[in-house]
Amino acid sequence: MASNDLFNILSPDSIAIIGASKNPAKRGYRSLRKLLDDGYAGAIYPINPNEIEICGIGCLPDLGSLPGPVDLALVCTPAATVASVIAECAAKGVRGAVVLAGGFGEAGDGGKRLQHAVLAAARAGGVRIIGPNTSGMFNTHKACNLVGFSDLRKGSIGLLSQSGNMALSLVTEAQANGQVGLSTYVGVGNEADIRFDEYLDYFAADPKTNVVIAYVEGLKDGRRFLNALRRISLEKPVVIYKSGRTSAGRISAKSHTGALAGEYAVSEGVLRQAGAILAHRSDEILPMAEALSLLPSLRSRRLAILADGGGHATIAADALSERGLALAPLSEDTRRRLTAELPPAASVINPVDVAGGTDTDPSVFAACAEILLQDPMVDGLLISGLYGGYAVRFSQDLLAAEIDATNLIGAMPRRFGKPVIVHSLYGALQADQRPLPLLEMHRAGIPVHSSLETAVRCMQALAERGEVDHTFALSLPKRAQHGGIFEQVLARCRAEGRRVVLEHEGRASLRDFGLDLAPALLALDEKEAEEAFLRLGAQPVAMKIVSRDILHKTEAGGVKLNVVDVASVRSGFLEIVANAKAAVTNPNVTGVLVTPMAAKGGVEIIVGVVRDAAYGPIIMFGLGGVLVEVLRDVVFRALPISRNDAFTMLDEIKAQAILDGVRGGTPVDRDALADFMVSISDFVDAFPDIDELDLNPVLAYPDGLAVLDVRILLTESSGARSPLKEGIEA
Amino acid sequence: MASNDLFNILSPDSIAIIGASKNPAKRGYRSLRKLLDDGYAGAIYPINPNEIEICGIGCLPDLGSLPGPVDLALVCTPAATVASVIAECAAKGVRGAVVLAGGFGEAGDGGKRLQHAVLAAARAGGVRIIGPNTSGMFNTHKACNLVGFSDLRKGSIGLLSQSGNMALSLVTEAQANGQVGLSTYVGVGNEADIRFDEYLDYFAADPKTNVVIAYVEGLKDGRRFLNALRRISLEKPVVIYKSGRTSAGRISAKSHTGALAGEYAVSEGVLRQAGAILAHRSDEILPMAEALSLLPSLRSRRLAILADGGGHATIAADALSERGLALAPLSEDTRRRLTAELPPAASVINPVDVAGGTDTDPSVFAACAEILLQDPMVDGLLISGLYGGYAVRFSQDLLAAEIDATNLIGAMPRRFGKPVIVHSLYGALQADQRPLPLLEMHRAGIPVHSSLETAVRCMQALAERGEVDHTFALSLPKRAQHGGIFEQVLARCRAEGRRVVLEHEGRASLRDFGLDLAPALLALDEKEAEEAFLRLGAQPVAMKIVSRDILHKTEAGGVKLNVVDVASVRSGFLEIVANAKAAVTNPNVTGVLVTPMAAKGGVEIIVGVVRDAAYGPIIMFGLGGVLVEVLRDVVFRALPISRNDAFTMLDEIKAQAILDGVRGGTPVDRDALADFMVSISDFVDAFPDIDELDLNPVLAYPDGLAVLDVRILLTESSGARSPLKEGIEA
Repeated sequence: MASNDLFNILSPDSIAIIGASKNPAKRGYRSLRKLLDDGYAGAIYPINPNEIEICGIGCLPDLGSLPGPVDLALVCTPAATVASVIAECAAKGVRGAVVLAGGFGEAGDGGKRLQHAVLAAARAGGVRIIGPNTSGMFNTHKACNLVGFSDLRKGSIGLLSQSGNMALSLVTEAQANGQVGLSTYVGVGNEADIRFDEYLDYFAADPKTNVVIAYVEGLKDGRRFLNALRRISLEKPVVIYKSGRTSAGRISAKSHTGALAGEYAVSEGVLRQAGAILAHRSDEILPMAEALSLLPSLRSRRLAILADGGGHATIAADALSERGLALAPLSEDTRRRLTAELPPAASVINPVDVAGGTDTDPSVFAACAEILLQDPMVDGLLISGLYGGYAVRFSQDLLAAEIDATNLIGAMPRRFGKPVIVHSLYGALQADQRPLPLLEMHRAGIPVHSSLETAVRCMQALAERGEVDHTFALSLPKRAQHGGIFEQVLARCRAEGRRVVLEHEGRASLRDFGLDLAPALLALDEKEAEEAFLRLGAQPVAMKIVSRDILHKTEAGGVKLNVVDVASVRSGFLEIVANAKAAVTNPNVTGVLVTPMAAKGGVEIIVGVVRDAAYGPIIMFGLGGVLVEVLRDVVFRALPISRNDAFTMLDEIKAQAILDGVRGGTPVDRDALADFMVSISDFVDAFPDIDELDLNPVLAYPDGLAVLDVRILLTESSGARSPLKEGIEA
Repeated sequence: MASNDLFNILSPDSIAIIGASKNPAKRGYRSLRKLLDDGYAGAIYPINPNEIEICGIGCLPDLGSLPGPVDLALVCTPAATVASVIAECAAKGVRGAVVLAGGFGEAGDGGKRLQHAVLAAARAGGVRIIGPNTSGMFNTHKACNLVGFSDLRKGSIGLLSQSGNMALSLVTEAQANGQVGLSTYVGVGNEADIRFDEYLDYFAADPKTNVVIAYVEGLKDGRRFLNALRRISLEKPVVIYKSGRTSAGRISAKSHTGALAGEYAVSEGVLRQAGAILAHRSDEILPMAEALSLLPSLRSRRLAILADGGGHATIAADALSERGLALAPLSEDTRRRLTAELPPAASVINPVDVAGGTDTDPSVFAACAEILLQDPMVDGLLISGLYGGYAVRFSQDLLAAEIDATNLIGAMPRRFGKPVIVHSLYGALQADQRPLPLLEMHRAGIPVHSSLETAVRCMQALAERGEVDHTFALSLPKRAQHGGIFEQVLARCRAEGRRVVLEHEGRASLRDFGLDLAPALLALDEKEAEEAFLRLGAQPVAMKIVSRDILHKTEAGGVKLNVVDVASVRSGFLEIVANAKAAVTNPNVTGVLVTPMAAKGGVEIIVGVVRDAAYGPIIMFGLGGVLVEVLRDVVFRALPISRNDAFTMLDEIKAQAILDGVRGGTPVDRDALADFMVSISDFVDAFPDIDELDLNPVLAYPDGLAVLDVRILLTESSGARSPLKEGIEA
C-alpha cells in the first residue's frame, strides 16, 4: 500500500509548473491560469528561465531555485528533457511529477529508452511519476485542476482512465447532467511508475471518494490490479469499463497503449471475481457510479415497479428480467393496501400500474411507494412513467402535491435502506424545461433517468454491489495442504528435462493432493496389464498409452475403451504399444494406463488452468464438446478461487441448465463439482511450476465426478515464475 | 388496402367533438382548445346539448344538427353511450370516430359486449373506429391534435402505439432532442375496428411520412400485420418495438391489452422477415427512426470510424463489432491520403485516430471524412470524440474552421449516398450550452449523439434497412406444385377420423411433393420386411413401428437400428410388433417401416412447423439435441418462406458455426438445407389441413440430408382453417 505516498501527490499542498508559459495555447499557461482562477490554496511555483512572472506570479528560473520541497510537479516540457527534469526534481525533494509529454513507451524503441531513463531518475531520487503520456490529474476538493477541463463540480466519484478523451466524456456528462460530481481524476498514461493498483489503494483510503470509475484498455500488471481491486471493493464500489472487448476493439487498444489487452471473457470473469461492477456501455458508466454513490445496495434481486401506464410497466418488466432482476411477489397485505389507494382498473400485482389513479392526485405515488417498500419481499423500487410531469401533463394545480410526494419519496432510501430510482419521460426535456419535481428529486439524491433501460441498469448495478457486499466475506481463498507426490514428479521431470507430466504421474499427484480420482494402474507389459485388470475387479477398463512423445493418443491408436476380459486386455496392451511405435518414430513408451470405464450418462465438462499474460494463473470451466468449441460457453476466474467463486462459475455459463439435468434427468452434484474446482485451483496455486493443466473431459454425475483425461505441462524452467510475478513489464 | 378510407379520417377536413365541454380538465374542452390554438384549418363542430358556445364556437345540440357529412368525430362520452353515438354518426355520414373511453374489450365480459355493440353500429353505418380505449390521434400537417400532447413539431415520422404513455415518451423526446418531428400519430387502442395493418397501409400511402414507428404489445391479427408490414417495407422503413419480450413482461402485456402477446423469438423472426427494423431498447426507438428518416441506408456492413482519440476509437470499434458491423479495410490510396493530412502518430488503419491532428485545425475532419467516403470499401462513416467542441476545448479561434467543416460534412451523405453519424461528447451538454457546430450539424440533418452505443445502433439500423432494400426482391415467395399423394392421405385420415398422419404416409407425401427423402418401405409381416431389406440393397436398415396409437416409438420398444441380415430383419419385425402390443393395450398396428440407416457424422438439426396464435403457420429451424433443449437456439419465420429467408435462418442461430463443420470437418450443404426448408414451407402452405409438422432429427451432411423422423398432425376438422384466417378475434 502506497496510499500515503500518493496522498501528498494527488492532494498536493504545493505545485511546481515546469515549463510554465505566457502562451495561452500551452498547458504551461492554461494549468497555471486554472489554479489561480479556481482559487487553489497551496503554493504555486511557475518555472521558466525566460520569464519574470506569469499571470502575476513570480517565475523561478529553475528547479534549483525552489525554496523547499514540493508535493507535485507538472512537467510540461518535451519528452527528451524529462529525465533530467526528474533528476532535478529528485534533488529538490519533489514527491511526485505529472509527465504530460507523449513519445515514451507507446512510441517505439526510442520512446521506450526515454521512458526507461525517466523511470531510472525517478526511482533513484524517490520521485513518483504519473504518466508519462497522460492528460493529467485533478482533485476537486483541493481546487487543483491540472487537466484543463473546465468547471469541475466537487463530488465523491474517483476516476481513473487510460484515455483522456474518455475522461473528458465522463466529466462533461457529470457537469451537464450529473448528480454527484467527481473527487479526483488521474489519467494513468503509460503507467511507467505508478500503476492502476496504487491509484486504487489511494482511492480506498481517500475520505472524499465513495465510488471509483476505471476506464481500462489493457493492464500492465493484472494480478496486482486484481488484488488492489479486491481490497478496495471490500469498502467501496468500483465501476469498470474494460474496452477492447471484441477483436476489432482489441486491435485498436493495442496500437493505442502498447499494453496487452486480454481476452474479454477472462477479464470479465476475474474482474467480477475481485468485486468490480462491470459497465458494458460507455453511456451507462456514470449513471451506474452515481447510483452506487447515492443509494444503498440491493439486498436481493427482487424489486417492485410502480408505473402509471401499462406500456412503461411492460417495458420495465422486460428490461428487469433481461438484466437478471425479478419482480418481487407482493404480500396479501401489500396488495390489499394498494387496492385501497388505487382505482379498480389498477394492477396491484407487480408491476403495479396505477391506471390513472395518480392523474388527479400525484401524492398517491408516495403512498404506494411507502406501501411497496414496507413489504419485506421488496428490496428496491423503480418508479416509471410520467412522474414529475403531472403538472405539465394535466394541471398546474397538481404541482404542490407532486412536490410533496417527491419530498416523501426522496427520504425513502434512507428510511428503508432500499434504493429508489425514477424513470420519467420528462427527464428527456432540457434542464430549463424540466419540471420542478424532477429537479427536486435530483436534489434529494434519487437518480432520475429518461431511459428506462439505464434506470434498470443502475438497479442491476446495485444488486451486483449487494452481492459483492454479501459474498465477499465467503470469498476469501482457503489453502490446501501440499501433496508430496507432485514434488517427486516435479523433480523427476526437471531431471529428465521434460515439461510434460505423464498421465499416471498427474493422476497420482492429484489423488495425493486429496482429489477423488478413480484408481489408475500403469502396466509395463501385458502381464502387468492383466494384473491391473484383475486388481480393478475385472470390470470393463479403458487402456491408454503413456508416452511423453504422444500427445494425441486416440489418433495414434493409443486408446482402447471398454476392454472386458483378460485376453483382450493382453492383446490390447500389445496392440496399443505397436500402434504407438507405428505412429511415432522411436517413441519413449512408459507403459499403458489401465483405468475402470467411467459410468455412462454423465455431463461432459472441462476444467483447465492456464497462465494469462495479464492476470497470471486463471481457471476455466465449461461444458464439453460442441458447447465449448462453437459457443465458447466458458467462464474464467483468477487463482486461487473460493467455493463461492466456483458456484458463481457454474451459474454463469449460458447452458448451465444442463447441470440441472436434461430431459428430466437428475442434476449433477454441484457441491462435488465446486469442491473439485477449488482443489484444482489450490493444486495449481501451490505449484508455480505448473504452466497449464487440462482435465478434459470430466464427467459430472448426480453423485460425483470422473476425470477421463489429465494433462499437465510445466513451465520452461524450474521455479522461475510465481503467481504473483506474472505481470508484463513494460 | 383501405388507405383511401383512412386518409379522410387521419387527415380530416372537418371534426365533430361529441361531448365538448367548458371544463378545462376535460378532453372535450382540451381538444377543442388545442385545435383552435394550433390554427386547425378545417371545420370544427362542438356538440353538447347544454352549451350554446365553447371557446367562442357555436355548439350543436346533437349530431343530427350537423350541416353535412364530417370526416372525423372525437367521441369523449362514456363507454355506455358510444354505441348509440356511433349509430347517430352513421346516420349523418361521419366517416370515422376516435373513441377515447375505456371499459370495452379490455374490461371483462360487460366491456366486450359494449365493444361488440359499438362495432355492430359502426359496420352497419360504415363508420370506421379508432380505438376504443385510445389516447387519440394527431396529424401535425393538418394541425389536428386530438391527443392533447403539447407543442408538436411537424415531421415525417409516423407513429402507431398500443400505449398512450409510450407515445407521450416518444413525442416528448422528439420535442426535446429530436431532429425530425412526427407526421401522424394513432393510439390504436383496442383495435376493435381499424387494426395495425390498415394504419400501416395508410402510412405507406401518406406522402408526409417516410418512416414509421410502431410500439406493439400484442397483435390481434399477426398474419395481416405481417402482410401489411411487408407491403410498406418495400417503400418505407418501419421501426418496431415489441414489448412482452420476457415472461415477466408478457404477464403485464396480457393484463394491459387483453391481446395475446406471442413468444418473442417468434415475433423477432417473423417481423424481421417482413422487413421490420426491430428496436430492443426503448431509448433507441426514436434515434433509429430519425437516422432512417434522414440518411441513406448502408449498402454493406462496412464502415469507417474517424476518432480524435484512442479511447473513443476503441469503444466505437467494440460497439461496431458487437452490433455485427465491420471496420472496412482501407485502400492503399486512402491510407496514403490520410497520412498526408495527419501527424505521424495518427493511426490510418480503421478505426482512424487523428491523434491530435485536428486540435489546431478541425477542418482536417472534413478532409479525412471526404477521403474515407471516397473509398469504395467504406459505406458509411462514424465520427467519434470531441467533434463540435474544439472551440470549447481548445480555442474560440477554431470555431469558424469547425463550422466550415460541419457544412462540408453535412453535405456528404447526399453527395456520396452514404450515411454519416456523429458521436460527440459535447452532445451531453444541455441545448443552450451545446457548441454551435453541433447545432449546425443537427440542422444539416446529421444525427449527433452523446452516446456512442446509440450512434452505432443507428448505423446498424441503416445496415438492416439496406439489407431489407437489397434482399426483399429475392424474398418473394415461390410456389411449388401440389402433390397428389397427400390429398389421398388426407382423405384417408379424415375418413378414419384420425389427426395423426402415419410416418410412411408422411414420407410418401413429402417424396411425392418433390423432397429428396430416402426410400422407406412398409412391411406388414416378417416376409415383407425381408423383401424390403433386400429391395433396399441388403444394406443396414432401421426398423420402426407404424401405429397411430404409439407416439413414443423408442420407449415402446418399437425401433431397431442397424439391422444387418435377413434373420435379424425377420426376428426384428416380430419383436417390434410384440413390444408394441406389450406397451399399449390393443394397439392399431399398421406395420413396420424399413429404411436404410443414415450415414454417420451428420449435423443433427430440427425443422418444424406450428400454427402460432398470432402469426399463423410458422417454420422453426434449430440445431438438434442439447442446443435446442437447453439454449433454445432456434429461429422462426412465417410461412411461406423464400430461399433468402431460409439462408437468413441458418445465419441467425447462435451455434451456426456448427454448420460450417466442427473440428475441421466439412461444412454441411447449405443450399440443400435451404431448398429443403423452402419445400417444407411450401408443402405446409399448400395444405391448410396440416396443424403441425415435425422433422426431428434431420441429419445434414456435406452432400445432402437424411430425415430420420417425420411427424404430421392434422387440424381438428377438415379445411376449416386457412393460413390467412389465423388471427385471434377479440
